[in-house]
Amino acid sequence: MRTVTIKEDIVSRNNERARDVRALLRAKNVFYINLMSSPGAGKTTLLTKLIPLLLKRYRVGVIEADIDSDKDAVTIERETGVRTIQMHTGGACHITCQMSEEALGALGVDGLDVIFLENIGNLVCPAEFDTGANMNLVLLSVPEGDDKPLKYPLMFEVATAVAVTKLDVLPIFDFDRERAAKNILRRNENAELFFTCARTGEGIRELTDYLLNKIQDSIHH
Amino acid sequence: MRTVTIKEDIVSRNNERARDVRALLRAKNVFYINLMSSPGAGKTTLLTKLIPLLLKRYRVGVIEADIDSDKDAVTIERETGVRTIQMHTGGACHITCQMSEEALGALGVDGLDVIFLENIGNLVCPAEFDTGANMNLVLLSVPEGDDKPLKYPLMFEVATAVAVTKLDVLPIFDFDRERAAKNILRRNENAELFFTCARTGEGIRELTDYLLNKIQDSIHH
Repeated sequence: MRTVTIKEDIVSRNNERARDVRALLRAKNVFYINLMSSPGAGKTTLLTKLIPLLLKRYRVGVIEADIDSDKDAVTIERETGVRTIQMHTGGACHITCQMSEEALGALGVDGLDVIFLENIGNLVCPAEFDTGANMNLVLLSVPEGDDKPLKYPLMFEVATAVAVTKLDVLPIFDFDRERAAKNILRRNENAELFFTCARTGEGIRELTDYLLNKIQDSIHH
Repeated sequence: MRTVTIKEDIVSRNNERARDVRALLRAKNVFYINLMSSPGAGKTTLLTKLIPLLLKRYRVGVIEADIDSDKDAVTIERETGVRTIQMHTGGACHITCQMSEEALGALGVDGLDVIFLENIGNLVCPAEFDTGANMNLVLLSVPEGDDKPLKYPLMFEVATAVAVTKLDVLPIFDFDRERAAKNILRRNENAELFFTCARTGEGIRELTDYLLNKIQDSIHH
């Protein structure tokens, strides 16, 4: 395919820049988390549960990315009160490192310990672009089905951790926990796995503890 | 809260080519339907319900597109017995008109009246590329939420018809039928709307009748 070379050039330039962003954030002791999933997998809802727990120890900020609407930023501000900006991508299907850098500048990193980037809901393109984050947290919701890691390999390959969401509806969907785990680990045997439900609170404590350890390891060393 | 707009050029030269594909299919009396949605919204399952009803009047073929795995093509063949090919996009997040043309060639259009293209599960990129289809059928599943047309405008703007899927789980999700309809029609006042459930059969007859009319109008004129 003729377009591959061009695409690889864009991706490789993007990823070089991401290393600089990471170095800059490291110098400022900021831990940056890139949150990715399909549309409607529960990214915003999960953040409203995680952030209050993280706030007991750290100062948190949120970058909300969407093609249009500021619904999610409004929700995060209302539910958590943390510093939040809404970024519009003008139709783009993913966040490049340049967009990520501009959004970090607009949010302001001073006075923050942890920043979440809620990426565009898309299980394909965002996985190709290193945003400069310290880790990729990928969500897979029960209604989507346990076969998604087979169909969207890269997203699960680049995941530092995968949280299965909406676990309360497991009994009424054709989703098998063990099969999901097997499919995720087939793509990425190092991915940390969590089974969560924002509505019932299941698994939220475990995911928070994992994030607290990652943050502590990163910003205190 | 501030909103930052970051623009990125998205250039598509494929859309001119799509007119040629449509002309070619028209000459062969073939009706081509591009099926798009988020991952896991129920594209394959819906096809297994629609195809047996369409087969009473027309000869049907299916192109299954995925980044990896042949799971969906296997399902379609097993459940419906129709001519099916699995296309792998090599990581690409959407089907270009060139890919569509190659897939039509590989499937073979002779002896078929109706061809479905099940696009990559992605609510962003596939909307930008005209595949040469006669219509875009877009699915929105209840678990994704009724706000998706606000966040992913183009997909709903290019929809000829939108089918809300997984209607049986409406009582347990925060999804309002009226709000969904309002959000979809806000993006596209000409979109035909259907509320369906593959599991219970709700709305499948109405959607089938609509498609039969579209097909008849197209291939008999």
